[in-house]
Amino acid sequence: MLLKDIGEVGIIKRISAYTQDEKENIIVGIGDDAAVVRTNPELASVYTTDILVENIHFSLSSISPFQLGYKSIMVNISDIAAMAANPRYALISLALDLNTDVKLVDEFYEGVIKAASSYGVVVIGGDLSKADTLIVSVVLIGEVEEGTIRRRNTASVGEKILVTGKQGSSAAGLNLIMNKVNLNLISDSEKDELIKAHIMPVARVKEAKLAAALGAASMEDISDGLAADLRHICEQSKTGARVYLSKIPINDSVRKISKALTGSEYELALNGGEDYELVLTAPESKVNQIADEILKICKTPVSVIGEIVADTENISIIEEDGSSKKLSFYGFNHFKDM
Amino acid sequence: MLLKDIGEVGIIKRISAYTQDEKENIIVGIGDDAAVVRTNPELASVYTTDILVENIHFSLSSISPFQLGYKSIMVNISDIAAMAANPRYALISLALDLNTDVKLVDEFYEGVIKAASSYGVVVIGGDLSKADTLIVSVVLIGEVEEGTIRRRNTASVGEKILVTGKQGSSAAGLNLIMNKVNLNLISDSEKDELIKAHIMPVARVKEAKLAAALGAASMEDISDGLAADLRHICEQSKTGARVYLSKIPINDSVRKISKALTGSEYELALNGGEDYELVLTAPESKVNQIADEILKICKTPVSVIGEIVADTENISIIEEDGSSKKLSFYGFNHFKDM
Repeated sequence: MLLKDIGEVGIIKRISAYTQDEKENIIVGIGDDAAVVRTNPELASVYTTDILVENIHFSLSSISPFQLGYKSIMVNISDIAAMAANPRYALISLALDLNTDVKLVDEFYEGVIKAASSYGVVVIGGDLSKADTLIVSVVLIGEVEEGTIRRRNTASVGEKILVTGKQGSSAAGLNLIMNKVNLNLISDSEKDELIKAHIMPVARVKEAKLAAALGAASMEDISDGLAADLRHICEQSKTGARVYLSKIPINDSVRKISKALTGSEYELALNGGEDYELVLTAPESKVNQIADEILKICKTPVSVIGEIVADTENISIIEEDGSSKKLSFYGFNHFKDM
Repeated sequence: MLLKDIGEVGIIKRISAYTQDEKENIIVGIGDDAAVVRTNPELASVYTTDILVENIHFSLSSISPFQLGYKSIMVNISDIAAMAANPRYALISLALDLNTDVKLVDEFYEGVIKAASSYGVVVIGGDLSKADTLIVSVVLIGEVEEGTIRRRNTASVGEKILVTGKQGSSAAGLNLIMNKVNLNLISDSEKDELIKAHIMPVARVKEAKLAAALGAASMEDISDGLAADLRHICEQSKTGARVYLSKIPINDSVRKISKALTGSEYELALNGGEDYELVLTAPESKVNQIADEILKICKTPVSVIGEIVADTENISIIEEDGSSKKLSFYGFNHFKDM
């Protein structure tokens, strides 16, 4: 049996069987944005790690070494943010061809430091080794008070579903970079904005901490796409969800690109991924304060896009005309980066 | 300018310029076996990470998935041991081809758990992604009381140099696996022992903690080879060293293989690498107790192989006839795995 036959969920289930979850000082084990371990009575340590492989996860023809360094750190900071934790330390490992120009390494680290320092993250170590293609491995270490941690498995029926920022911009930017889009569709400034969303994403650290402090129940960052990440929350919380298509916040430029590429103006927002916004759930009584405070303090818009319902309903997408479809209709289940 | 032109030391110096070392809660930054961060008043957290790439660092034609999983964890536990710390948690990331048989992943994780559980290490997370070849990334997290930490930069002139176990066995084992050795040189049981030393190394966690408790001053694990790792200690401590060739503990089988392959029976012991023994320094007054206790409690032999001298002498190798040569004569400075 091959990996592609059992799929991502199958592989993670299989691996989970080999690991120990939530014993002794392990507060969160495998299966969330990051692992959490109790390191002292007040603070827990939060760990996440990622491998990025050239020509699989990135191409140096479409991202500069600086941008790659920046993004490698930022997407891991986003995983720490998704636990409502403070990112603190990073280890960066590079495997690369010895015929690589030193300038690439310099620029890569400049990007790393740019992203890390803007969040107060300090690079404390790493590893260097040979390889035929460039491989980046990042470890991000965060800290959080145990009660502040927000997980994927803590959504409850009746809670509202909120997202920060706009959805699908990163995927639209990627399609622009790859020249798959008719450029007459959008303006130059819209183009620049979408490409920036893909290449230089922003992790929602402050937003996540505010949301947790103001009563968010469950939380995840949107790395695989809103549909996939909301599905993680539902599966782990044993709930369903109802999402109103018209309430998903999407830039007009993204709607146009999505429509032109896929026939649906929602496709990139639902399945694009890499926006690194947050999807979270909260009781209705907390929703206004969460949205207002995040907008006021972080200048980040927050939108209510639906609600958590019983497991039996699965994830329903409510169309503009009020009709309801299963989320699976919208093409989720691409084996993207696993 | 290419990476191979500036070499390992050049790259690490360059990267260090981008990182912050020993500020605030950072006890050990870049350049040691592992990074150390103060996480609470009593305990510090210790972090190390490694990337292993198929056909660069290992070949599945000569190591089984089980052995690869085992060794991936063990070599990182060894880095934690080298700081005299307790290994506690691991994150394992795999990037692999989706046409990989699930059995490989199962066996890999069985090896991971075998190594981890034998040291009380719990696997708490990781990442899965696509790649064309198998890539393994390991993060090992340890704990240590701050005063117990042993570093590379704390050797002093006059201290003795000690090593645990035997040197060169792993490199001899690798040459056996790669069929580079006339098998008539050694017995079948010797052959098995050397291959095991390469494929299933043992991290010296207990030995390191005992040595630290009994007065070892500086310490490192021997991953790059005795010559290279002793050079790290000397460079970082700003000392030289004198090593007596005849005192380096080497199995007879390794001497034979080394002589046949290189013309010198010491070559594999000095430059072979991957033995994961410890090299440490200690004041003469502490040496006997360190050696006796480690032998008694761990059944691991400890040998005094030389002494730390002033920087100006560099690293001298004292031959059996009493003549002295610079270490560089012995061919160190291969750009192995960086």
